[in-house]
Amino acid sequence: MFNIALFGAGRIGQVHAVNIDEHKETRLYSVVDPHQEGAVALATKYGAKVQSCEEAMADPQIHGVLIASATDTHADLIEQAARAGKTIFCEKPVHLDLARVRDCLATVAACNVPLFVGFNRRYDPQFRRVRELLAAGMIGKAESLLITSRDPSPPPANYVKVSGGMFRDMTIHDFDMARFIIGEDPVSIYAQGSNLVDPAIGEAGDIDTAFVVMKFPSGAMATIVNSRRSGYGYDQRLELHGAKGLLTAKNIHENAVEFWSEEGCVAAKPEHFFLQRYAAAYIAEWQHFVDVLAGRVTPECSGHDGAQALYLADKALESLHSGREVKL
Amino acid sequence: MFNIALFGAGRIGQVHAVNIDEHKETRLYSVVDPHQEGAVALATKYGAKVQSCEEAMADPQIHGVLIASATDTHADLIEQAARAGKTIFCEKPVHLDLARVRDCLATVAACNVPLFVGFNRRYDPQFRRVRELLAAGMIGKAESLLITSRDPSPPPANYVKVSGGMFRDMTIHDFDMARFIIGEDPVSIYAQGSNLVDPAIGEAGDIDTAFVVMKFPSGAMATIVNSRRSGYGYDQRLELHGAKGLLTAKNIHENAVEFWSEEGCVAAKPEHFFLQRYAAAYIAEWQHFVDVLAGRVTPECSGHDGAQALYLADKALESLHSGREVKL
Amino acid sequence: MFNIALFGAGRIGQVHAVNIDEHKETRLYSVVDPHQEGAVALATKYGAKVQSCEEAMADPQIHGVLIASATDTHADLIEQAARAGKTIFCEKPVHLDLARVRDCLATVAACNVPLFVGFNRRYDPQFRRVRELLAAGMIGKAESLLITSRDPSPPPANYVKVSGGMFRDMTIHDFDMARFIIGEDPVSIYAQGSNLVDPAIGEAGDIDTAFVVMKFPSGAMATIVNSRRSGYGYDQRLELHGAKGLLTAKNIHENAVEFWSEEGCVAAKPEHFFLQRYAAAYIAEWQHFVDVLAGRVTPECSGHDGAQALYLADKALESLHSGREVKL
Amino acid sequence: MFNIALFGAGRIGQVHAVNIDEHKETRLYSVVDPHQEGAVALATKYGAKVQSCEEAMADPQIHGVLIASATDTHADLIEQAARAGKTIFCEKPVHLDLARVRDCLATVAACNVPLFVGFNRRYDPQFRRVRELLAAGMIGKAESLLITSRDPSPPPANYVKVSGGMFRDMTIHDFDMARFIIGEDPVSIYAQGSNLVDPAIGEAGDIDTAFVVMKFPSGAMATIVNSRRSGYGYDQRLELHGAKGLLTAKNIHENAVEFWSEEGCVAAKPEHFFLQRYAAAYIAEWQHFVDVLAGRVTPECSGHDGAQALYLADKALESLHSGREVKL
Repeated sequence: MFNIALFGAGRIGQVHAVNIDEHKETRLYSVVDPHQEGAVALATKYGAKVQSCEEAMADPQIHGVLIASATDTHADLIEQAARAGKTIFCEKPVHLDLARVRDCLATVAACNVPLFVGFNRRYDPQFRRVRELLAAGMIGKAESLLITSRDPSPPPANYVKVSGGMFRDMTIHDFDMARFIIGEDPVSIYAQGSNLVDPAIGEAGDIDTAFVVMKFPSGAMATIVNSRRSGYGYDQRLELHGAKGLLTAKNIHENAVEFWSEEGCVAAKPEHFFLQRYAAAYIAEWQHFVDVLAGRVTPECSGHDGAQALYLADKALESLHSGREVKL
Repeated sequence: MFNIALFGAGRIGQVHAVNIDEHKETRLYSVVDPHQEGAVALATKYGAKVQSCEEAMADPQIHGVLIASATDTHADLIEQAARAGKTIFCEKPVHLDLARVRDCLATVAACNVPLFVGFNRRYDPQFRRVRELLAAGMIGKAESLLITSRDPSPPPANYVKVSGGMFRDMTIHDFDMARFIIGEDPVSIYAQGSNLVDPAIGEAGDIDTAFVVMKFPSGAMATIVNSRRSGYGYDQRLELHGAKGLLTAKNIHENAVEFWSEEGCVAAKPEHFFLQRYAAAYIAEWQHFVDVLAGRVTPECSGHDGAQALYLADKALESLHSGREVKL
Repeated sequence: MFNIALFGAGRIGQVHAVNIDEHKETRLYSVVDPHQEGAVALATKYGAKVQSCEEAMADPQIHGVLIASATDTHADLIEQAARAGKTIFCEKPVHLDLARVRDCLATVAACNVPLFVGFNRRYDPQFRRVRELLAAGMIGKAESLLITSRDPSPPPANYVKVSGGMFRDMTIHDFDMARFIIGEDPVSIYAQGSNLVDPAIGEAGDIDTAFVVMKFPSGAMATIVNSRRSGYGYDQRLELHGAKGLLTAKNIHENAVEFWSEEGCVAAKPEHFFLQRYAAAYIAEWQHFVDVLAGRVTPECSGHDGAQALYLADKALESLHSGREVKL
Repeated sequence: MFNIALFGAGRIGQVHAVNIDEHKETRLYSVVDPHQEGAVALATKYGAKVQSCEEAMADPQIHGVLIASATDTHADLIEQAARAGKTIFCEKPVHLDLARVRDCLATVAACNVPLFVGFNRRYDPQFRRVRELLAAGMIGKAESLLITSRDPSPPPANYVKVSGGMFRDMTIHDFDMARFIIGEDPVSIYAQGSNLVDPAIGEAGDIDTAFVVMKFPSGAMATIVNSRRSGYGYDQRLELHGAKGLLTAKNIHENAVEFWSEEGCVAAKPEHFFLQRYAAAYIAEWQHFVDVLAGRVTPECSGHDGAQALYLADKALESLHSGREVKL
């Protein structure tokens, strides 16, 4: 049984708490959060302790840490945990500043501890199946990838201001997905964007609608279609075209009931948001981290992967601002 | 070029008129209809003559007759046409009385002229494909067939009174479809029905909702699901289960555009009614009849098929009234 | 925390053991199974005791029993548990003999303990949604119901011999579903069947392919389409037609990835069997039973429901053998 | 009845010949083609004359010309027909050189004759419906458009060499579609491409796989996904996302029959190529041109539209070669 300290008792921390608790090899040992009330509530629910950051890092009972705190604390916590010899699960991103990410990863390397960066969508059974079928040769060589990713509704402008911008906050998942599916690092990137959804987002200096095009060394290309507001639930689809056909990963819908009437044939809309759509992915991701904790595998999704996705976000922003394709 | 006399200038007659006119081997030569105004309008449209029944039967220029007149005139017209040596296309049914049908077919046989009974659905590309894939062994031996057939909205009670009842008027198509797909004549039949759609139909002594179960010599079974009112267009589907899998012929929808919103994912409803859904079937059916006219083939759907479908309708009614399965 | 004694450590017992263990209000307290090895294995997995039947019934620590043992032990165990004052969850059927079922239910009534009969499909979110949308008036009054239920592959003939026959073993779920959706008891039933899948089933005196038609007091009708072998996974669908349209509950498929190639567009087949398809239903069903244990609700699916479904199975068999519709 | 001279008796000329012949207001009056044999065959089929170009232009019996000849003859024929006062239908493109196109259009303007450029996809009922639903406000303001267009298999390298390149030959339809749907001219364009399908295409200096991103004055964006080879038929889809939801125009499939087996659920692949997929569009397009001939409307798709699509193709090529977004 591995004891886990959870940093961050917010929405995503709560998702992980359930999975830590339900996994037969892990126990939610402690919760760390500056908002004492949230920490207590979550700890109580699972019979865990409330600890300060220092206590947790110093506690030899703790095998692994799960960092789901505010973004700007990730890098510091990773370094502290690395120095304390803990196995680390960190929610994306490591940091919004790429130089800081690289420093942090150097520390992790020096401490020789495993670091897993939580790009949850890699564990979605649909997307993973596409990758496996590609690897199995079903469609021949990959030629073009299309990732559609639209949130159900936009975040508040306050959040947008501290988010690092749409590419670092939202598209970062799609950058990782493109690398995950194609299995290469792109050689060029182009981004175009607009502020169409909420004027407050534009006033905060950000966009809310974006297209990105990447080219890979093999000649394969990928496009990302993003919006901060779908109007119809969480739109998470992927199409991979290859020499011998097409693989499509369609949305998961709220239910399988249709209503046929004079108005047409109505099916349910896609699952509302990530908590619903990626519930299975969070569980599978945790299983992978348990395998890392147990020394059975090394992290499939490493600090390097986190850095690369952030690098692509930075370069997409450079492209957006310069109106040029950026060579990588 | 074959000259065709069309009996009946109503809705279904007009459908055939277009196809007769557009086929490169046939010409609409004349229109016969006691309602002079309709006959003139249709004949004028296609540059055809208006003839009386007697004139048409006696006219040596006419190679084939298409009987799309009122149901109670079919058998008489068939006999006259047979005696006149015409090749005959008759809309279903030959007659509502089975004894009369058999007499009529005897006359046709004695005159040795081809008679095609227009069960248009046999020429629907979807249903025909199911039959062909069954014949090709795709699903192994047929085990169970499910036919769903619902009209968009009920006919007026006046029509119901002279229709011969739901089984002879509407289900007759499904009886023929079951024989067409399975390729056998059933050995038993059971029917259950209700008057749920329109009380006036019940007052006219008829039902508007029905289930029929038939068993075939091979042990295969078929179910028919009928309603006089779907509420969502013309529901025309078929599922055939066999030893190695399932073939389904789905509805044809009005278009391929979907609208995704907070209310769900809305697709178009099925094609409205038979004129839309079976447009291609009517054309294919006419091609078959032209092949009959030209002596290239014999009728795929004969007077015997018409009689058998009516026989099943009669026996379904007997089952409905007796509450017993009827052996055939 | 409610302590549960589980009778039966087989396949279905193991499904329930997981859900008992994972529910925050219940604990797997003990396992009872004459096959000692299976009992020990399952008990060990969840930190439970192994008990004899007598020990469990006499143990005041136990609040509820879950009977998932061999069918012919259900009624006896229900009666013992009722006399011991336990709250009872029994897998369908209570017994294969209706008289025995009624005796058993009388004992339960006399002891005044809650009895829940586990018709798991009532807790499938798709089917439940259809019922809720009907209740909400979405399609107006129910007119016709079509239940398709095909197992992926047939059971061994040995099982068939002791199963009570297809209607009591398999169709019983569909009889319950029809009552659940329509909300009435039928007034007539007709059944037709064949032995097409496996000759050994016919030699055991049973059928493997069946159609059932029922009529309800409101005039609504239901058809059940059954096969012991689909050839394409577990086919579990339902269509409910009403005055204002159609509700369809489609299959749940193994995944949402499609492969488009020269051979066509290939989607995944339906979930393999009940463990996969009804995983969510088993969890929801257990939640309901916990609510019963806690006195928050009475059983939605009672001994009476179990008896009614068996009654319909008996009458379907009578219809099959007599070739008559049976009045109820 | 309008007499039509058809220039070009090849594949696309034959498609139009059928529609000219079947339309009740038009007659195929003559066929002009330097390959005498093809001209004679086609003319004979429809009872038309064979004429030289000069004869046709000088023939006062001819009301309209349909130019479906080799691309490099289009502009010359348009000018001759304009000077002869004919109403002109020209297959895309007017010419591969934009300066030549503009000269040609100036001549047409000077002659004051109607010129319709045949972007057939504008007449596809699916795409047109998307545009109409956008205009009706169903999805609010347009935000992002995704056009997927993949041919079933690549053209021979010989054709590629004279085609003007993928953007001018294939993507030109998608450029026009984007303008048609969004209803604006883009302000920037970016293109990325690869040679993945056939090395001979690369040797001919062309690409076979491309992504294009355009931005419009309203902030809306469009992406085009192209391949010269799908591996699964003709992939012609469109998704339009707006403030209130998504409209998707899906592929039209070869049939509506599915086969469910152990291998999954197999549906038909998309219609093979443009002759099948756009059969209805060619007919609707011809109806529009007849309305132009009759003076009932002016061309919906003008020489200006042809020039704009070619302009976008030129600028896409400039972007591809420069690695920059091109401002328009």
